[in-house]
Amino acid sequence: MGDLISLLRTGLPDEAVMADPDVTASYATDMASFCDSGAPAVVVLPRTVEQVQHVMRVATELRVPVVPQGARTGLSGAANASDGCVVLSLTRMNRILEIDTVDRIAVVEPGVVNAELSRAAAAEGLYYPPDPSSWEQCTIGGNIGTGAGGLCCVKYGVTSEYVIGLDVVLADGRLLRTGRRTAKGVAGYDLTRLFVGSEGSLGIVVRAVLSLKPAPPAQLALAAEFPSVAAACDAVCAISQGGHVPSLLELMDRTTVRAVNDMTRMGLPETTEALLLAAFDTPDPAADLGAVAALCTAAGASAVVPAEDAAESELLLQARRSALPALERATGTTMIDDVAVPRSRLAEMLDGVAAIADRYDLVIGVCAHAGDGNTHPVVCFDPADADQARRARASFDEIMALGLELGGTITGEHGVGVLKKDWLARELGPVGLELQRGVKQVFDPLGLLNPGKLF
Amino acid sequence: MGDLISLLRTGLPDEAVMADPDVTASYATDMASFCDSGAPAVVVLPRTVEQVQHVMRVATELRVPVVPQGARTGLSGAANASDGCVVLSLTRMNRILEIDTVDRIAVVEPGVVNAELSRAAAAEGLYYPPDPSSWEQCTIGGNIGTGAGGLCCVKYGVTSEYVIGLDVVLADGRLLRTGRRTAKGVAGYDLTRLFVGSEGSLGIVVRAVLSLKPAPPAQLALAAEFPSVAAACDAVCAISQGGHVPSLLELMDRTTVRAVNDMTRMGLPETTEALLLAAFDTPDPAADLGAVAALCTAAGASAVVPAEDAAESELLLQARRSALPALERATGTTMIDDVAVPRSRLAEMLDGVAAIADRYDLVIGVCAHAGDGNTHPVVCFDPADADQARRARASFDEIMALGLELGGTITGEHGVGVLKKDWLARELGPVGLELQRGVKQVFDPLGLLNPGKLF
Ligand SMILES: Cc1cc2nc3c(=O)[nH]c(=O)nc-3n(C[C@H](O)[C@H](O)[C@H](O)COP(=O)(O)OP(=O)(O)OC[C@H]3O[C@@H](n4cnc5c(N)ncnc54)[C@H](O)[C@@H]3O)c2cc1C
Ligand SMILES: Cc1cc2nc3c(=O)[nH]c(=O)nc-3n(C[C@H](O)[C@H](O)[C@H](O)COP(=O)(O)OP(=O)(O)OC[C@H]3O[C@@H](n4cnc5c(N)ncnc54)[C@H](O)[C@@H]3O)c2cc1C
Repeated sequence: MGDLISLLRTGLPDEAVMADPDVTASYATDMASFCDSGAPAVVVLPRTVEQVQHVMRVATELRVPVVPQGARTGLSGAANASDGCVVLSLTRMNRILEIDTVDRIAVVEPGVVNAELSRAAAAEGLYYPPDPSSWEQCTIGGNIGTGAGGLCCVKYGVTSEYVIGLDVVLADGRLLRTGRRTAKGVAGYDLTRLFVGSEGSLGIVVRAVLSLKPAPPAQLALAAEFPSVAAACDAVCAISQGGHVPSLLELMDRTTVRAVNDMTRMGLPETTEALLLAAFDTPDPAADLGAVAALCTAAGASAVVPAEDAAESELLLQARRSALPALERATGTTMIDDVAVPRSRLAEMLDGVAAIADRYDLVIGVCAHAGDGNTHPVVCFDPADADQARRARASFDEIMALGLELGGTITGEHGVGVLKKDWLARELGPVGLELQRGVKQVFDPLGLLNPGKLF
Repeated sequence: MGDLISLLRTGLPDEAVMADPDVTASYATDMASFCDSGAPAVVVLPRTVEQVQHVMRVATELRVPVVPQGARTGLSGAANASDGCVVLSLTRMNRILEIDTVDRIAVVEPGVVNAELSRAAAAEGLYYPPDPSSWEQCTIGGNIGTGAGGLCCVKYGVTSEYVIGLDVVLADGRLLRTGRRTAKGVAGYDLTRLFVGSEGSLGIVVRAVLSLKPAPPAQLALAAEFPSVAAACDAVCAISQGGHVPSLLELMDRTTVRAVNDMTRMGLPETTEALLLAAFDTPDPAADLGAVAALCTAAGASAVVPAEDAAESELLLQARRSALPALERATGTTMIDDVAVPRSRLAEMLDGVAAIADRYDLVIGVCAHAGDGNTHPVVCFDPADADQARRARASFDEIMALGLELGGTITGEHGVGVLKKDWLARELGPVGLELQRGVKQVFDPLGLLNPGKLF
């Protein structure tokens, strides 16, 4: 280990190599509960591509595993350290290198915080859509690592849709450039998108070319109250079938609404079983909201409350964005699931989650990117209570099993990490798993990059 | 070879296995000029997944190469036969299995013709955007193989954006299922998009889950006449920078306009150097066209002619769609290039193409998906004239070199095939090429799938 640190220091300034055990311990995990993690040997914070290459060359020479990290807001343990690893934190590589208003692209370093890019783009009349609720913390490198989604993805798609080119430092320290700066390109296999969602297991992203959209008009939102979660899901299906394209279509169940009210004092309506939030950023959002309001009413909504203006709409978004922290705060400890099902199966999924909660005698709050069929059942429990903790884990697994049964996936946006490794194998099947492992082998033959994640 | 055919016949009906040399010869090439091709040993036309698996098992057993084919409208030789190969034509697997209006997806076999899917989707109020100009012939399998683009891609993106799940028969006959039916999903590496644009070299696509959009309003178009190609490119940049999102933004130079008029008697204006077509499918297309017309005028347009209605707009689209056949018809033989550059470099690119045409004393007509920076310089020449043919090839290569110099790619949508193999290596560089070869090796260790393409 002395060797490791002194070799690292030959290519990095002293302050960028931190081996104090208190410091390294603080980099051990992301925000997922109940995932294994180990004790890093050292944390490095490079500022340049060359420094990242140096780290990977040293790691390869000494056969030391490397765990790349962004802001560690991940919810699957994908950024968790393994014993004796180098934690490679990209947070200091945080420059926006370029925003081009004609080509509508941004070129960024991986440590740029999502919301900072959004603001910089907005200042140029442009828009970087992927907006995970953690956007004020999480980094573009982490978003690429997980293939992050968010609230606006129902209209604008996820991170994968916006990453068009990458610079990646490979396990052996070589630099790979993939993709393009152009709007289109099909030269060879799409390695760029192979990196999106690869959870740091194929290489270190050190630079990304992102495509941007023109800034849309400010969105206008409504909140609709439903007597049941299933009725809200029916409204979601009707909105989709009606050909509407909201810029946001989110669901919060009663447990979630209460938790948000407790934390934020927002005064959302607590007497209904489910709250559906819809928004449009179209030229005439009021007209679109009117049509959606009618569909909500037809599906059984007891009340539909349009926001007065953009500012009030933004408050509704903030309410939804605070759902996960609020549930965590309200209930102590949570396990956040992330199952996505076809939109048409959403009601079955959420009714099934309620049945699972009943069966295991647990509170499971639900918020969902409903328009995408992407649910976040949040299993609340007391970890000091061993039996409850066991039931929590069992219910968490049953939720994934149900998702697969309904033609869904175990993860819509949070990724696999260590949390869902066993389930990934189940979703992919043996042929898929074998090929995924084969791909990993091509990029990282020594298995040094983020070992123990995914599979 | 007797062995090959009799083994194939053990799992396929007789009429699906064609070994008559006249027949097999007719399957030797796609629509690219001047690409090497060989003589297939046999052509098979399966109707089921099991039959495709049988073909691949036989091929693996006998170590015979297999070339998958759709409609063979490809422009890079990617579907060209190699000597002694099995041509595996997917054209009879042409059923639309499902269109779901709530989940907004279609599930199709690979031989479905692009325009047929478009029509079937439209009948349900839905929209499958990718629309190569060959859409009445080309197949979804071929579109996936090449990562096809088209006219509407400037607003809606290319094939890759719409393929969310695949069933693929691997080289050894095993069936791989990738991706999902859900709007979102990040379970493992994105193998689905690895197949898009892989030119039949990684597996045989036998079923695809495609995402659809709600049908937009009919588009309204305008045609703007410019005194120079560069001025038209300036207008393209101004339109982009102005935050407009046209559903079509296409350029035809004078040579192309004349060829189209000759073939179609459409009466497009021939006295200007470049014609720019723009269209919007927004709620108020006339207003959007008005703004774009003003930008065109400011960039130097000598005339801006709006279409009267949707029908007249459709005629303008048809004019653009017939550009390649028209140039071919007008000039005998053509080599169609496909270089894409950042939008901001479009004028430099097209001025450079004009200079190359001058230098080599050749006619090079240009049409372009201008909004995407994707140019199609069409080198016209007489193959009987050896010196002209040599100059044609040299100019074709110089066009790619220029594209790379301007930060572009050698292929925006037509692919690499055999036509641009040498150039792919140049674009990717040694590290990229090595990894791409590694990926190929994982999926096709014996090198049986479409050998000699890409690299
Ligand atoms: C309150 C809250 C709300 C959230 N809401 C959402 C949401 O709406 N949608 C959503 O998708 N997620 C959400 N998340 C999850 C999380 O924010 C995302 O997964 C995010 O993308 C993680 O970014 P990060 O910078 O924190 O990355 P980390 O957690 O540090 O890392 C994530 C993964 O990326 C890898 N990685 C990081 N940087 C690089 C790099 N430069 N090169 C290669 N690999 C790298 C890591 O190894 C790890 O595998 C939420 C989390 C919280 C706490
Ligand atoms: C007049 C004209 C206009 C055109 N305009 C455009 C345009 O605007 N945009 C554009 O992108 N292209 C355009 N093209 C090119 C061509 O139409 C596209 O490349 C199209 O995607 C090819 O489809 P196909 O069915 O003809 O496939 P093919 O040419 O038969 O095959 C293309 C590739 O896909 C592979 N493949 C086919 N089926 C499968 C399968 N089931 N599984 C695995 N691999 C498979 C083949 O091996 C080959 O590598 C045009 C061509 C012409 C002739």
